[in-house]
Amino acid sequence: MRPQDLIQKKRDGGALSPAEIAAFVRGVTDGTLADYQASALLMAIFFKGMNEEEQQALTQEMLHSGEILDFSEIEKPKADKHSTGGVGDKTSLIIAPLAAACGLCVPMISGRGLGHTGGTLDKLEAIEGYRVHLSLEEFRAVLKRVGFAMMGQTAHIAPADKKLYALRDATATVEAIPLIVASIMSKKMAAGLGALVLDVKTGSGAFMREEERARELARALVATGNSCGVRTEALITDMNQPLGRAVGNASEVHECIALMRGEAEESARPVLDLSLELTARMLTSARLESNLEDARLKVKRALDSGAALECFKQNVEAQGGDPRICDEPARLLEEGLHEERIVAPRDGFVIKVDASEIGNAVAAIGGGRARITDEIDPAVGFLFEAKLGDEVKAGDALGLLYCRDEGQAQEASERIQAAYTIADEREPVSYRLIKEVITL
Amino acid sequence: MRPQDLIQKKRDGGALSPAEIAAFVRGVTDGTLADYQASALLMAIFFKGMNEEEQQALTQEMLHSGEILDFSEIEKPKADKHSTGGVGDKTSLIIAPLAAACGLCVPMISGRGLGHTGGTLDKLEAIEGYRVHLSLEEFRAVLKRVGFAMMGQTAHIAPADKKLYALRDATATVEAIPLIVASIMSKKMAAGLGALVLDVKTGSGAFMREEERARELARALVATGNSCGVRTEALITDMNQPLGRAVGNASEVHECIALMRGEAEESARPVLDLSLELTARMLTSARLESNLEDARLKVKRALDSGAALECFKQNVEAQGGDPRICDEPARLLEEGLHEERIVAPRDGFVIKVDASEIGNAVAAIGGGRARITDEIDPAVGFLFEAKLGDEVKAGDALGLLYCRDEGQAQEASERIQAAYTIADEREPVSYRLIKEVITL
Repeated sequence: MRPQDLIQKKRDGGALSPAEIAAFVRGVTDGTLADYQASALLMAIFFKGMNEEEQQALTQEMLHSGEILDFSEIEKPKADKHSTGGVGDKTSLIIAPLAAACGLCVPMISGRGLGHTGGTLDKLEAIEGYRVHLSLEEFRAVLKRVGFAMMGQTAHIAPADKKLYALRDATATVEAIPLIVASIMSKKMAAGLGALVLDVKTGSGAFMREEERARELARALVATGNSCGVRTEALITDMNQPLGRAVGNASEVHECIALMRGEAEESARPVLDLSLELTARMLTSARLESNLEDARLKVKRALDSGAALECFKQNVEAQGGDPRICDEPARLLEEGLHEERIVAPRDGFVIKVDASEIGNAVAAIGGGRARITDEIDPAVGFLFEAKLGDEVKAGDALGLLYCRDEGQAQEASERIQAAYTIADEREPVSYRLIKEVITL
Repeated sequence: MRPQDLIQKKRDGGALSPAEIAAFVRGVTDGTLADYQASALLMAIFFKGMNEEEQQALTQEMLHSGEILDFSEIEKPKADKHSTGGVGDKTSLIIAPLAAACGLCVPMISGRGLGHTGGTLDKLEAIEGYRVHLSLEEFRAVLKRVGFAMMGQTAHIAPADKKLYALRDATATVEAIPLIVASIMSKKMAAGLGALVLDVKTGSGAFMREEERARELARALVATGNSCGVRTEALITDMNQPLGRAVGNASEVHECIALMRGEAEESARPVLDLSLELTARMLTSARLESNLEDARLKVKRALDSGAALECFKQNVEAQGGDPRICDEPARLLEEGLHEERIVAPRDGFVIKVDASEIGNAVAAIGGGRARITDEIDPAVGFLFEAKLGDEVKAGDALGLLYCRDEGQAQEASERIQAAYTIADEREPVSYRLIKEVITL
């Protein structure tokens, strides 16, 4: 079948056969399929979707376009968490050590931040000396010794996804659910997981702003994961305001350590609540615990006992970072930054927060990237004071911005102020951290 | 605006601004827009369409991507006909001389055949010595002297269309109506026309098999032509069987000359009927005649008087061909070909003819092209005996095939036989040559 016939078949709503999907992924991987044909097919998939069989075939082919890691010599159940990305979402830094402390093996392959969303690798690199580029053998060694290890995607893992993602990014086909599912699941499956818990964000700071779309994505992820042999479940969680108090790489790591140390401010609490719940579900999905209540208790104990923090400290040391940050988290925060108090322009109630715009504002002053090649300034960040539903007076702090100079301060302040909607009347706040659980 | 933002806008159903469309066409023409982004946008246009303003902007931008011919020194009204392509559709060879004989100036820029449809340039090249590659000055000279001239699209006419067409062909985005309209109209407008009559085919041998789609295309063509300053109307005509008796390049030229000489078989008659009507409408559209009845009379006289044939003869001579074919059309037909009588496999009534499959069968033995680079064998062809609605007995001739050898004969016979549906019962034949007239 010629590529254009395959494109036409999908364009007209047909289902591609496993052989056709294999030919497509092979053509993308080895470069024999022209980019312009691949992108036309991606757009056709955007409009026409994929059925379960196609979705499974696409995921498997993308997975098998590269190497699959084998940690079978580690006897612990292998499990991971994946988030679709949000603003201030730093739970991986708590979940990985917490899950490891509970007896799971967590081979976490993470990504960089792009646009308004942060990335776990960028946050980890805010720790002085921390290395996210490990050889596979180093990764394996850390995983064995500590119970979890963190690294970036290598060129050998799902190379089809790497090429397709670049193409999707350039052709406005990122948001197609079958493509998102195959991208996430092929990479996660390459780590040889038995269980996976997904955190699908919805709301103003999420990729999927509408809850119904988030639900559709979650269902497709859960169906595909399970049909490919990974026990998968998903939480749909609220991203109608940034998660926790800190947005910005160093300050997010700081918040995570403070939370593990029991020293964080109350406004950071949702980060911990979500981390505990996701970890508990990793334990049950991986069959380490048979019921969720027991799993929750176990996870809580691993946190309260300091076992999670100890595990995190071991990982930091093993991956080249300065472990003293676990005892003195203030070491993470650069001194001498410009500090700007961003204030409410009027009296009223915070009825809406555009989390995406806050993410973009912090990214624009160096906290994130517009292009994947941009450099990150780990020190800049924003700490929330006012959250959804809060009553504020004109001049009250909406939050504190840490940045490099007056120019950055002005630029970011205006955007952050504009991201808040302050109304005369109190409105019922619909924010609910965990909105729904999607299982098979 | 980044290309991906523009793609996303169309993907989400937005209307592109004239500036955005200009940027797109400019990027395609000068190669600064990546092919994979252009093709993703084409697919988004396939699904989301274009409004009238976008359609007009796209057409104008494609037109202005190249040179616009200026024949203003010729005082006659400039008019042309364009067909969306069918099987056995040879009307251009009659219409151009007929219109010229009636006093129009017809600068006809034609195309090659591809797939099941034939192309005017290929038919003309069946005339020994005939040159379709003229310099602009040669074209202008023939046009002045004879009243009509025929040539292929040059690299300077609508180069954006050339690039986009190649991309559409490779990405299953040929059938998008806004893209078809811009492609046709940008090239036709480059010839500096004042009036244009379109022959939009529908049925088994047409590009637009469904009448409703053909109507949609015709309406868009007429609206765009008129909004761009070309008086445009369209006929929707029946392509549920090949037009006329002959399919194949030399035999189609032969049929046209026979028709102009009044010597053709009755079964070729629809070619003439359609040619007369289209030409009459060119006369009224170009304001050379004020009403259709007068125009029809004038056209009929130009045919019957031999003026059209004389005009054709002058053109053939002017473009390097052998003018004796006009007096002895048999000169067009190669001798010594293998002649195969294709017979009805059973008694019954011809209730369906798959014209596209007949076009493909003739193309496969050299009468057409699968790829644009394929060579044409002008001599091979098929002459119909049995048409829609005819009663046939087993063994009666469906038609006569002219080909190179026994192998070709067998290959084409089977396909042509299979293209006929012969039923026990007579069915009302819905074939109607001119189905509808679309005006502004």
